[in-house]
Amino acid sequence: MLDKIKSPADIRKLSISQLIILAAEVRSRIIDVTAKNGGHVAPSLGATDIAIALLKVFDPLVNRIVWDVGHQSYAFKILTERNEQFDSLRKLNGLSGFNNIFESKYDAFGVGHSSTSISAALGITVAKEKKKEEGLAIAVIGDGALTGGMALEALNHAGHLQKKMIVILNDNEMSISKNVGALQNYLTNMLVSKPYNKLKEQVWALSHTLPDSIRGKFITGAQKLEESFMNILVPNIIFEDLGFKYVGPVDGNNIHRMVRILHKVKTNMHGPILIHAITHKGKGYSFAEKNSQMFHGLGPYYKETGVCKSEKSVSFSNVFGAALCNLAETDSEVVAVTAAMADGTGLIPFSEKFTDRFYDVGIAEQHAVTFAAGMAVRGLKPYVAIYSTFMQRAFDQLIHDVALQKLPVVFAIDRGGLVGEDGATHHGVFDLSFLNMIPNLTIMAPAYAEDLDAMMKYSLSHRNGPCVIRYPRGTALCQKKNTEIEYGKFSVVDEGEKIAIIGVGTAFHKALTLKNILSAKEKISSTLINPLFVKPLDNELLGKIEDNHSIVITIEDNALIGGFGSSIKSFYVNSDIKVFSYGIPDEFITFGNTEELEDLLGLTPEKIYNDLLKNRLFQEIIRENTN
Amino acid sequence: MLDKIKSPADIRKLSISQLIILAAEVRSRIIDVTAKNGGHVAPSLGATDIAIALLKVFDPLVNRIVWDVGHQSYAFKILTERNEQFDSLRKLNGLSGFNNIFESKYDAFGVGHSSTSISAALGITVAKEKKKEEGLAIAVIGDGALTGGMALEALNHAGHLQKKMIVILNDNEMSISKNVGALQNYLTNMLVSKPYNKLKEQVWALSHTLPDSIRGKFITGAQKLEESFMNILVPNIIFEDLGFKYVGPVDGNNIHRMVRILHKVKTNMHGPILIHAITHKGKGYSFAEKNSQMFHGLGPYYKETGVCKSEKSVSFSNVFGAALCNLAETDSEVVAVTAAMADGTGLIPFSEKFTDRFYDVGIAEQHAVTFAAGMAVRGLKPYVAIYSTFMQRAFDQLIHDVALQKLPVVFAIDRGGLVGEDGATHHGVFDLSFLNMIPNLTIMAPAYAEDLDAMMKYSLSHRNGPCVIRYPRGTALCQKKNTEIEYGKFSVVDEGEKIAIIGVGTAFHKALTLKNILSAKEKISSTLINPLFVKPLDNELLGKIEDNHSIVITIEDNALIGGFGSSIKSFYVNSDIKVFSYGIPDEFITFGNTEELEDLLGLTPEKIYNDLLKNRLFQEIIRENTN
Repeated sequence: MLDKIKSPADIRKLSISQLIILAAEVRSRIIDVTAKNGGHVAPSLGATDIAIALLKVFDPLVNRIVWDVGHQSYAFKILTERNEQFDSLRKLNGLSGFNNIFESKYDAFGVGHSSTSISAALGITVAKEKKKEEGLAIAVIGDGALTGGMALEALNHAGHLQKKMIVILNDNEMSISKNVGALQNYLTNMLVSKPYNKLKEQVWALSHTLPDSIRGKFITGAQKLEESFMNILVPNIIFEDLGFKYVGPVDGNNIHRMVRILHKVKTNMHGPILIHAITHKGKGYSFAEKNSQMFHGLGPYYKETGVCKSEKSVSFSNVFGAALCNLAETDSEVVAVTAAMADGTGLIPFSEKFTDRFYDVGIAEQHAVTFAAGMAVRGLKPYVAIYSTFMQRAFDQLIHDVALQKLPVVFAIDRGGLVGEDGATHHGVFDLSFLNMIPNLTIMAPAYAEDLDAMMKYSLSHRNGPCVIRYPRGTALCQKKNTEIEYGKFSVVDEGEKIAIIGVGTAFHKALTLKNILSAKEKISSTLINPLFVKPLDNELLGKIEDNHSIVITIEDNALIGGFGSSIKSFYVNSDIKVFSYGIPDEFITFGNTEELEDLLGLTPEKIYNDLLKNRLFQEIIRENTN
Repeated sequence: MLDKIKSPADIRKLSISQLIILAAEVRSRIIDVTAKNGGHVAPSLGATDIAIALLKVFDPLVNRIVWDVGHQSYAFKILTERNEQFDSLRKLNGLSGFNNIFESKYDAFGVGHSSTSISAALGITVAKEKKKEEGLAIAVIGDGALTGGMALEALNHAGHLQKKMIVILNDNEMSISKNVGALQNYLTNMLVSKPYNKLKEQVWALSHTLPDSIRGKFITGAQKLEESFMNILVPNIIFEDLGFKYVGPVDGNNIHRMVRILHKVKTNMHGPILIHAITHKGKGYSFAEKNSQMFHGLGPYYKETGVCKSEKSVSFSNVFGAALCNLAETDSEVVAVTAAMADGTGLIPFSEKFTDRFYDVGIAEQHAVTFAAGMAVRGLKPYVAIYSTFMQRAFDQLIHDVALQKLPVVFAIDRGGLVGEDGATHHGVFDLSFLNMIPNLTIMAPAYAEDLDAMMKYSLSHRNGPCVIRYPRGTALCQKKNTEIEYGKFSVVDEGEKIAIIGVGTAFHKALTLKNILSAKEKISSTLINPLFVKPLDNELLGKIEDNHSIVITIEDNALIGGFGSSIKSFYVNSDIKVFSYGIPDEFITFGNTEELEDLLGLTPEKIYNDLLKNRLFQEIIRENTN
């Protein structure tokens, strides 16, 4: 069946039973490819039927479908002229793991971060109206993403504008981690204890117990109560109160039902409509159904057994999690905060050991940070574990609620630098720039596991302001000796002359290799520095370097603009030192594995060396050295 | 009465009738001082009775009160040992216009930006519990602030945790502008068409119309419907569904009632509680009651007439608003978006002229930006007018939803630089830094009204990515000739040699004065540049400057870290040019009038000149020149 789908138009011709066969084929395709490439398996399997039902009822070029986050849209991708390319999912120059307007005309809006879809769909709705275009905007959003503040802001505005648009709430009762929050409890309670139909029956049964004369009065009275009474019939009053028509709950994995409801909504309803679809994450692949958390997003796995192919190495996230447990044992004021990323940030051991000191606030980064500030203002020591790219969501809270008040919150910023296959929406390459400019903030970046451990210990005693400890995805190398942290002091790993190389965080390993290349090829004994601190700079050391060095080379996996290299350039601008900075250029970086991306960006030690060779100043230094 | 209040403990001893007298005295004090100093008059008058009732029932050192935004807390300030200092409100070294933990032990949490109070109060609640401290955390939040995403995130989390805390919803039916959003409609409708008591009466009246035998059955049936039926009795199901106990609505200007309710809530209720208090903005001062929008926040005024003292000059906001109207007339795709700041950003004329192309999304900056992105992706040309400091709230959306997709959204960033009396929470001194690092973004800054006008015209044609036009609060000077904008080209206003002075935006006027000082005192004919663009840099021009200049001086009202000066330093780091940058140091800047603050920071042309004189390199240039 799938082979015959050349474009979405072909789907609209299929019968329901054909669509069901198609769904199975699409799922099989998703499993085949993700087993090889990795990816967001469970979300995409769960939303396959929604994608098919949408494409049966709506022409996606006329109607614009915005997938929130986009990691559940693999079926949509396969069915919108991207089946052939699907083998290249998340590979360099291949298909993105999210939706991307530059990839396909079918992708209505680029996504990656959570909770944006309703805002975007509302914008599209307004634009379509202004341009007198046919069709609707449709947002598909998970129950986890719905608790993100901006999704609620958007619901509030959409309910106010009352323009026809569809929000499909893809309620799988579990987003990345188990959902938290009153809204989630509410949705669950509604489904479990007072399902729509039962409630409706009860009300009408009640009215039928009344004598005819009284029933009339009852109904008149009920009508007087107007919408408030309607809330008994339609329990999802939250959405109704926000101006949405609520439809559901409906089995989102039942294509037949979904098609019927979508058709009805398309033709018969007005204003903003919320369809509450219940789906099962991982649907159709038993391993993913059973372990939907692991299969939320993972690397390559064995299709037959559902076992991951990659060996588990110790990541910085693991080191952080273990270190935090140690701190919590000695200091009862230590608490941990995450925004729905307990697993990814290494907080699972902490959450199990210190249940009552662990706070998963759901997808709500803004609240997470100010909540931590509130705890810190009364003497607790909160550690907020957050991905670099999601820290962007809580930028204002970090400035306004934490740094301005010099509160001793520690931010464990994970996934700094390039993250690989998730690509442009998820790279953590801006953090050093947007953190650098914040007063009262201390920023550290470990090169080794031991660095992170020492920074964690240091952070506990740092009480006169917030700290950031920033580290990348992936393996934490060991240097097999303890790191000493002294506030604002860089670590000179090797003292040389003429050239000093500073590698920030794990870019230190590149600096080390570059030093070795210079030593081997140019007989230059350069100075090698693991700065440990990004802010404040070690001005004393940087000043001393001027005495016997002419060149400082900085390497980082952050944007060159505003990053560590930029600080060093500002430091040396009026000196004789020349500074060469290597880092992320002023562009958004695509997806692919991190090594490929680094190669593409010239961020390997070899490419940096070759680049330096082209530089006249550098040539002079080398010439002097050989003379 | 007020004279006798030495500390909040004295308030707890007063009778209700004494409290009412106290309220009148406090209001009178607020009016006297704000008439002289300016300030947020109407919010603080409206919340005076809430403050007094809170202080009657709660010891503010044991219970911690978090005022959302804080501009409504003047009464609280006066009554918590700050009456004497109150004359210095918003003056340099005086009392802040917001709450500040460094100012008073009574201020539980520093505020300024909207929607943070519930998060902070929840954090305080958790900390109090962990530390086994007595007392509650209490958040006082306006109905406008409640629509901010992070407030909803916090409600969701607080409802989930079920710890005892109090949220007072200070519902004055109008925040800064008229509120928008479905939530607001909901609150208003509830109050207008189905007030709590009336609804309650109706239901019970209905049950009493039934014969006794039936009534029993009816009540049994009703009980079966459990909480769902309760929703008729307590219409504020949104808060109940989110896990809050809802109390109200109550007249928030009735001290007697407020005290009774607070007392009851304090002693008899558990879990999170939302008290819905209805207040009148400007209460007790007829001019502020009548014109609560103007009296939301204003400069000095005549107490007797309610007329502003300051003469209205043409601000950059006005120029922007007029220019946007002109663009909208010629281009039907132009639409405007604001987050509850139509007045402050100069959008009132546009909103009146182009009602159906104007979108006030309420206090919801994140949604505002992605909503604009959604409109842009379908071919509209949105102008988002936003204060610099609030742009921090939508930082991720700007990166992820706009810049990454190269969408032609224009950001009119108002209140860039120092804003004066609102102080640290509101200065727009970080924007150039956090914008600079965003790929695909063009940044402009006008020095003159004509610059802004030309930039607006230019922005309309800029279609391959987003633009920022950034300007400060206050008067837009005219240069009385049109500005020509060529993409990425700086304007050389005066060609000189040896020293080039670049003043960004209105800092250009300082650059001009500095040039005149250098000319008068040192006979140096320096080059004067109005860059117009902050990004991209005019590399060609900067390269040419190297030929006959040894010093480049940059002046800006942005953080030195990551700002324009930092870009220029990066540009010249490996050249012989020396760069001296003047801007905001790496600290949070206090409040006071802008001239005072600039003087404090050494950002006046005279102080810059004196600072330069101390510099050895600068001395050499001067010496060479005189030789």
